[in-house]
Amino acid sequence: MRRKVYVDGAGVRVPFTEVVLSGDHAPVRLYDTSGPGSDPAEGLPELRKPWRRGRTQLAAARAGIVTPEMEFAAIREGVDVEVVRSEIAAGRAVLPANVNHPESEPMVIGSRFLVKVNANIGTSAVTSSVAEEVEKLTWATRWGADTVMDLSTGPRIHQTREAIVRNSPVPIGTVPIYQALEKVKGDPLKLTWELFRQTVIEQAEQGVDYMTIHAGVLLEYVPLAAERVTGIVSRGGSIMAAWCLAEHRENFLYTHFRELCEIFREYDITFSLGDGLRPGSIADANDEAQFAELRTLGELTHIAWEYDVQVMVEGPGHVPMHKIKENVDRQVELCGGAPFYTLGPLATDIAPAYDHITSAIGAAMIGWFGTAMLCYVTPKEHLGLPDKDDVKAGMIAYKIAAHAADLAKGHPGAQEWDDALSRARFDFRWEDQFELALDPETARSYHDQTLPADAAKTAHFCSMCGPKFCSMKISHELREAGMKAKSSEFVDAGGRVYLPVTGA
Amino acid sequence: MRRKVYVDGAGVRVPFTEVVLSGDHAPVRLYDTSGPGSDPAEGLPELRKPWRRGRTQLAAARAGIVTPEMEFAAIREGVDVEVVRSEIAAGRAVLPANVNHPESEPMVIGSRFLVKVNANIGTSAVTSSVAEEVEKLTWATRWGADTVMDLSTGPRIHQTREAIVRNSPVPIGTVPIYQALEKVKGDPLKLTWELFRQTVIEQAEQGVDYMTIHAGVLLEYVPLAAERVTGIVSRGGSIMAAWCLAEHRENFLYTHFRELCEIFREYDITFSLGDGLRPGSIADANDEAQFAELRTLGELTHIAWEYDVQVMVEGPGHVPMHKIKENVDRQVELCGGAPFYTLGPLATDIAPAYDHITSAIGAAMIGWFGTAMLCYVTPKEHLGLPDKDDVKAGMIAYKIAAHAADLAKGHPGAQEWDDALSRARFDFRWEDQFELALDPETARSYHDQTLPADAAKTAHFCSMCGPKFCSMKISHELREAGMKAKSSEFVDAGGRVYLPVTGA
Ligand code: SF4
Ligand code: SF4
Repeated sequence: MRRKVYVDGAGVRVPFTEVVLSGDHAPVRLYDTSGPGSDPAEGLPELRKPWRRGRTQLAAARAGIVTPEMEFAAIREGVDVEVVRSEIAAGRAVLPANVNHPESEPMVIGSRFLVKVNANIGTSAVTSSVAEEVEKLTWATRWGADTVMDLSTGPRIHQTREAIVRNSPVPIGTVPIYQALEKVKGDPLKLTWELFRQTVIEQAEQGVDYMTIHAGVLLEYVPLAAERVTGIVSRGGSIMAAWCLAEHRENFLYTHFRELCEIFREYDITFSLGDGLRPGSIADANDEAQFAELRTLGELTHIAWEYDVQVMVEGPGHVPMHKIKENVDRQVELCGGAPFYTLGPLATDIAPAYDHITSAIGAAMIGWFGTAMLCYVTPKEHLGLPDKDDVKAGMIAYKIAAHAADLAKGHPGAQEWDDALSRARFDFRWEDQFELALDPETARSYHDQTLPADAAKTAHFCSMCGPKFCSMKISHELREAGMKAKSSEFVDAGGRVYLPVTGA
Repeated sequence: MRRKVYVDGAGVRVPFTEVVLSGDHAPVRLYDTSGPGSDPAEGLPELRKPWRRGRTQLAAARAGIVTPEMEFAAIREGVDVEVVRSEIAAGRAVLPANVNHPESEPMVIGSRFLVKVNANIGTSAVTSSVAEEVEKLTWATRWGADTVMDLSTGPRIHQTREAIVRNSPVPIGTVPIYQALEKVKGDPLKLTWELFRQTVIEQAEQGVDYMTIHAGVLLEYVPLAAERVTGIVSRGGSIMAAWCLAEHRENFLYTHFRELCEIFREYDITFSLGDGLRPGSIADANDEAQFAELRTLGELTHIAWEYDVQVMVEGPGHVPMHKIKENVDRQVELCGGAPFYTLGPLATDIAPAYDHITSAIGAAMIGWFGTAMLCYVTPKEHLGLPDKDDVKAGMIAYKIAAHAADLAKGHPGAQEWDDALSRARFDFRWEDQFELALDPETARSYHDQTLPADAAKTAHFCSMCGPKFCSMKISHELREAGMKAKSSEFVDAGGRVYLPVTGA
């Protein structure tokens, strides 16, 4: 059985999922992103309302102040709050929390903490509705999304975002250039700084917690992408490149970056510096276009920090395994340790319809190497807008990748979950095993496909090996035999141990 | 469109899948394991019948002789046959080909070659039938299985295997201890060397190409597994441990190993030295039990080589990412470079029902580090016997892992597939992209869920970003603008490039 429990801290009450196990096995507590649950028409309660304040989390952290948000996040992470404060102060972690999104439950993103997963949702001009997107939001957080990006394009962007922010217990990210482009009916040449600025303020007022800003796509970098196999594959990147080239002027997001910092500081919005020139194929990985932009993102990171504005830096894309580590190493160096936030990367291009898997491989590795948040990829990547099933498939693949990374990083406590599940497995506590699984329903249903009877839930085998070949059953008999051997009572004169292995 | 084509070599004719692309784009040739297709009642034609000979592939390779099997495998791999011969001669590669399995199409397994994937099939006492298992065999090779293991337990083991071998275009592996245990009605204490020997000969006569032999589970190692979280999780390992402990004698597979070598030499069967003490949980990874057995497997490898018998060595299991590399490094050192053949490894225990994904992460990494063949894991792992859908899900996840490893190893030619697909993607040649996909049908159906019309197959967008936000479409416009700029004709007096970006 799973239930929600709360841990009280200084002025905060932090939810966890508790997996209650059978017998006297200690319950296991899991990080919980699902929030208190909402009626879409009402929105969520305003948890952070009493906490709102004038300065940013980064300014507070630098001043040595522990905010309730930091306290909340520290309890979730199971670390001392001083670790949270000092990592934020150093710029190595962010706590995205727009003052106008009081519904969100605070969380922290940084390489010292649990690896996080972002889920992209949002309408496109071709498909979906506001109600569907709110449902995807709830679905994504139910499967563990730590943040959600609303990437809506097409009509009703404002309304969709409003519904999402009001119902989201996790930080919401957006890419404001999408809405700006809608406002000029899709013509990049009509984009202006002023229009963009108004759009950012509109979204800031709604409570967006972090925004992707493609300020690193400089005019001089655009030709570097010209000979690529897949050109520019970031939507925002391609829009800004089109604008720069057509205007033959520097990217207005770059030239007005300090003004953006001032707006972001006002709302405590976190930058997610977009990698507009990320590689979209194995052939383009780690090329000059990509790393030129990364140098600029490093420069912008340091500027944002001058304004007490928090920063994450986005990363690729499509990268073969042997080129993954270089991405992290360069990002850490150029961006002063600001949290890296990567899309996958996909370790091969050959499997459209399975890019949640091609990218879970890259995501697990890059998470181990130090990426703080992984942007999920769904099976529909490259093929269409993800539906609810795709959201779940992407989330599960990425929770696996993130947890595998936590294990490899030796994150304290991460292995407890694995150990609890493996002990349940070895003890044939089938219901405990299912409840501890990332996806209890599916684990249970797979087991029940061949052995649906209640009795099978305590059986010392399953249909994979069958009763005579269940290695874990034989292992138990060995263990018993070993214990009896120790007590000597089942050892005959010749020193042989009689093993109570059952025949057919 | 995909079609089968053949490449002729010295006395051999090697099949490939050719993906025919639109326009004048060069076709792409893919490695093809599906075989000529068979009527289950008839079995496959006996391709290798005219080639049969008295000595093993290893003996021939050591004598400097190039066999037709080596020639065939070299063409499949796209390498010089001398590489194949010399790698086999050095023990760093195996070419599993029982003289009694003339239906098989030769292939080579070794770290210098493409990373291979094995699919496990087979009945259990609880479920499945002979016909279902032959269907799974055909299904597995259709999705790219390089070898198939028949792990049948329960009734009709002999008949199931006969049907599988006669219909298999790929090498077949078995674990003979399973059938031996069935013969003694599931009581490990009744197992004898003589019974085991007869079982091996029975299977050798049928044409099994490689056999898993758990000869490294020594009596003294059994206590090392006693305190583990998940004990002994290899079926063969637990059976032999039970026998050793009950008899208080050394494993008869170890004491009679040289006799096994003589039998294997007669049929040219390849050893797959089983890792009976592999870890079954993250907690047990890389422990003393596991590495003690590996040392013995190294000793046995060198003994088999004395008899001109080919050897692979099996590996884990459940291993967190940061402990994967040590497995390969130790195996290479202890086993003299004999091909490593690993099950996954699963990078975390927390996701039963998704262990094709948890293990694809470990498999891709261990393949990159040098594992020659990956044993797939299906979504049913730990929960039940895989059905046909599970076989496909496991195969796809593992073809992704194997190809990702080929890319990371810089295998010549591997990236051509990615590049061809990415070029098709960037050109909006949707049908070409689907045909080049690992699973064309699923890629096509995902695309068509939102845009089923024929016109969408040439559209410069899909439903993911929609027409105005398709970054690849904008990229094309940028490229055109760039070319026009070069020819100066669209640049005005102020040096501005007019970009033909379309409005809504
Ligand atoms: S039968 Fe096999 S898969 Fe099932 S519980 Fe036993 S060892 Fe695990
Ligand atoms: S709309 Fe987006 S996903 Fe679809 S083809 Fe264009 S860039 Fe690719």
